[in-house]
Amino acid sequence: MDMLWSGWGDPAKAAPLPETVTGLLRDLLGVKPRDAEPLQLEEIPVPATPLDEAVLQDLSAAVGGDEHVRTDAETRVRHTRGKSTPDLLKIRTGDVADTPAAVVLPADHDQVLALLLTCARHGLTAVPFGGGTSVVGGLAPARRGPLVAIDLRRLNRLVDVDPVSRTATLQAGLRAPEAERLLAEHGFTLGHFPQSFEWATIGGFAAARSSGQASAGYGRFDDMVLGLTLATPEGTIDVGRAPRSAAGPDLRQLILGSEGAFGVITSVTVRVRPQPATRVYEGWRFASFEEGAAALRRLAQDGPRPTVLRLSDETETLIGLAQPDAIGSDGAQNAGCQAIVGFEGTEEDTARQRELASAVLRECGGTHAGTEPGERWAHGRYSAPYLRDALLDAGAFAETLETAAFWSRIPELYDQVRTALTTTLTEAGTPPLVMCHISHVYENGASLYFTVVSAQGDDPVAHWAPAKEAANEAILAAGGTISHHHGVGTDHRDWYVREVGTLGVEALRAVKRRLDPDQVLNPGVLLPTD
Amino acid sequence: MDMLWSGWGDPAKAAPLPETVTGLLRDLLGVKPRDAEPLQLEEIPVPATPLDEAVLQDLSAAVGGDEHVRTDAETRVRHTRGKSTPDLLKIRTGDVADTPAAVVLPADHDQVLALLLTCARHGLTAVPFGGGTSVVGGLAPARRGPLVAIDLRRLNRLVDVDPVSRTATLQAGLRAPEAERLLAEHGFTLGHFPQSFEWATIGGFAAARSSGQASAGYGRFDDMVLGLTLATPEGTIDVGRAPRSAAGPDLRQLILGSEGAFGVITSVTVRVRPQPATRVYEGWRFASFEEGAAALRRLAQDGPRPTVLRLSDETETLIGLAQPDAIGSDGAQNAGCQAIVGFEGTEEDTARQRELASAVLRECGGTHAGTEPGERWAHGRYSAPYLRDALLDAGAFAETLETAAFWSRIPELYDQVRTALTTTLTEAGTPPLVMCHISHVYENGASLYFTVVSAQGDDPVAHWAPAKEAANEAILAAGGTISHHHGVGTDHRDWYVREVGTLGVEALRAVKRRLDPDQVLNPGVLLPTD
Repeated sequence: MDMLWSGWGDPAKAAPLPETVTGLLRDLLGVKPRDAEPLQLEEIPVPATPLDEAVLQDLSAAVGGDEHVRTDAETRVRHTRGKSTPDLLKIRTGDVADTPAAVVLPADHDQVLALLLTCARHGLTAVPFGGGTSVVGGLAPARRGPLVAIDLRRLNRLVDVDPVSRTATLQAGLRAPEAERLLAEHGFTLGHFPQSFEWATIGGFAAARSSGQASAGYGRFDDMVLGLTLATPEGTIDVGRAPRSAAGPDLRQLILGSEGAFGVITSVTVRVRPQPATRVYEGWRFASFEEGAAALRRLAQDGPRPTVLRLSDETETLIGLAQPDAIGSDGAQNAGCQAIVGFEGTEEDTARQRELASAVLRECGGTHAGTEPGERWAHGRYSAPYLRDALLDAGAFAETLETAAFWSRIPELYDQVRTALTTTLTEAGTPPLVMCHISHVYENGASLYFTVVSAQGDDPVAHWAPAKEAANEAILAAGGTISHHHGVGTDHRDWYVREVGTLGVEALRAVKRRLDPDQVLNPGVLLPTD
Repeated sequence: MDMLWSGWGDPAKAAPLPETVTGLLRDLLGVKPRDAEPLQLEEIPVPATPLDEAVLQDLSAAVGGDEHVRTDAETRVRHTRGKSTPDLLKIRTGDVADTPAAVVLPADHDQVLALLLTCARHGLTAVPFGGGTSVVGGLAPARRGPLVAIDLRRLNRLVDVDPVSRTATLQAGLRAPEAERLLAEHGFTLGHFPQSFEWATIGGFAAARSSGQASAGYGRFDDMVLGLTLATPEGTIDVGRAPRSAAGPDLRQLILGSEGAFGVITSVTVRVRPQPATRVYEGWRFASFEEGAAALRRLAQDGPRPTVLRLSDETETLIGLAQPDAIGSDGAQNAGCQAIVGFEGTEEDTARQRELASAVLRECGGTHAGTEPGERWAHGRYSAPYLRDALLDAGAFAETLETAAFWSRIPELYDQVRTALTTTLTEAGTPPLVMCHISHVYENGASLYFTVVSAQGDDPVAHWAPAKEAANEAILAAGGTISHHHGVGTDHRDWYVREVGTLGVEALRAVKRRLDPDQVLNPGVLLPTD
């Protein structure tokens, strides 16, 4: 099934906003219902592909047949940009400026290599396309020639499982649910459940350093990767002979997060774990975000470490966004800050960890709120993007952004980003609701995930830009990283360059020039163009 | 205090071999006592420095005074090569082919930057020098001009401690014991205790991806590093704003393991942990290496994870090398395979973990051997290099090498490397004792650490070379990495290139060329020269 072209996910799962929320948008944020009818896919003015027959034939030859080279309008619209709110707003107005000239579907690593050579020969620009879920402009590269989207969906095999080492080799185009299904046949799980889980691919997780909602227990995707195969215009890089090595820099960690700028990741070898026998998710309440954050820090530093560990701030708790399925309900009970604490594993381990963690959380001022909030969270964990679609449909603006820092910087980072967003949008005449949660914890720091809801400006994309810029500036000023798990793409590139510094970026550009001398792959994504 | 120029460590701690060992060397391995008197430091024919006054003045200007530029013979001998057995054998014969023309001691990051520019201007080759403990030829670069050793001992400050984030910033020249002492003043430990602990430096740990004996609990050094500052001929790279980030490739992991080929690491920000209240080390016995390895794997994969987890094979257990202090004693009790299992932490945690781990070890066939073997191991944990000196003094040859792989490859890797060493040395007329232990465990694999003892050939350096090459070939053939924690240096470079592949190496050479265009730094170390 294809994802909704104009929004998120499975169109059948779209849910209208509850009446309470509609009222809240109107009364609190001044949101006015949209009057225009939504554009239909068929109405989008996609021009004919600029590729001539000779080029199309060469592309077909690279991928084993012309049925794997698509130039129809629908396929090209479905491969236009990603799923950030500006992306959705643009495609909803029929903006096809970033639409690829063709979508090609290679079947394996060698076909990807052939395709990259074909692109280089014809001066085409290539964008690797997995689930299409980028929210940072990662699918809208600069162009040095017509754009070809390399859709990896045919690279969808579980290549190998090594039950002794507990590793599995997965092709890059596998979607996460299918990867989990294939691993479950061997009794294993990856344990990687980001919000994009239902659509995103294994290769995308690696290319963009995804982090899942159970990262406290299972780690980030970049923690899980033990081996990688990368197809570049200059050939193949294949690394990972041991969990860890002192044989030079860790090339895996050079490829992870390279966002298609160095090559196309065609398969990864990942750590897998036994399917947990038990899963328990529960809610805890803290009087303040500060108190809750201290409790999370205590567990992250001294243990025991739950599998899931998240904390919503006062606003997010009040609005109930911690459980997207239940937004707007139970207002009276939504005081303080809600944490979700989850345990997965054997029954014995889970019970022990839960008992120990509960004692710590109580000592840190937490009040146990039972498993109901945890179950609600688990049930709605992939729903937020659907909620965003409903908000956009209702004429509101809704977007998220995220960062991370060391623990000592978290309070300032939280304040500065909130202030930047609130001030900018209020001054622009659309005072926002800004909500935040700690989405991932580490021994030495944490990530902050912000959700912004406001009225749309007349030109909502342009209206949002200064607020996003102000948030980026606040992140850098407060010592945060420009992205904890969304990635750099084109949207964060200029701030990324400042974060890493000129020479750091130059080192990466030197790699790019060596692996992709003709700048075929994702120019302007991650790294500035030459 | 300076390290013994012709061997390891503090000359006062040198210990003669027990009579039983001398007998064993003679009867089992055919070792003949040396007849020649050892060379004295003053007898080594060090030529006058080739650097002229103008160059020396420029070097002095870069490091703030001519007292920080040393050209005396003793200092230069003490900065000649590292501490591999071939290194020791060479310097013991007065081989000064790799002796630097000068040793310079910068005081801070800016002086290192200035020094690198000075080296570039005068066509000098620079080798960063921390503790001088490399065992892979990492201190013997190819030369494009006279060699200058950059001794980092003046960069010896604890710059900052962040008790909330549990991080500390340490300068690169700090030796590990001093780093631990400074951190202990704040109640923290790094938990990094490699065999080179008493002499090695923080910068060296980072540059060579060191792994300590408590890595099961505290992780490897590259796990601990959260931030890095690198001085290159082209300027500074300063990275690490959060524990983890999705902002591009992890540049920290590109610098870690770069072995001075990209620049000089001048400081690192590391994760620190509270000083443990309790430390318990105990011995366990297994009937076979296979059974013991399965037990270690079970703990590494399903927990609980001890802080220290090691397993000696039958030969190493028999010889008693698991406790270098006690070698040759208790022969009758040394049946099977000995594991060392250690726990550090709060009293409560340690007791709980120990109880749970003991149940698992028993279930896996282990027999508890009490804390005495553990205490002996802990007492002698830094003694093995002293033992090597005594063996060399007695006319024997002794060397170590190491690798790592995924668990499923460990049995073959173990067999192949042992066979390669045994066959080569036996055919050369010096049948060896080959001992091995699992020194570090991971969820998905483990490292193997081999110790080889034999009679010396007539030319012991040349005699060893084919055995080392055969071991390297066996490592690659059996799916291992060419080094788990010793590094690449010059000794492993050709096998490293094969492990990582041409294009992977080319990507790193592109980085090298951008950061060090004149190839000032460590040419031929890690990467082939242009």
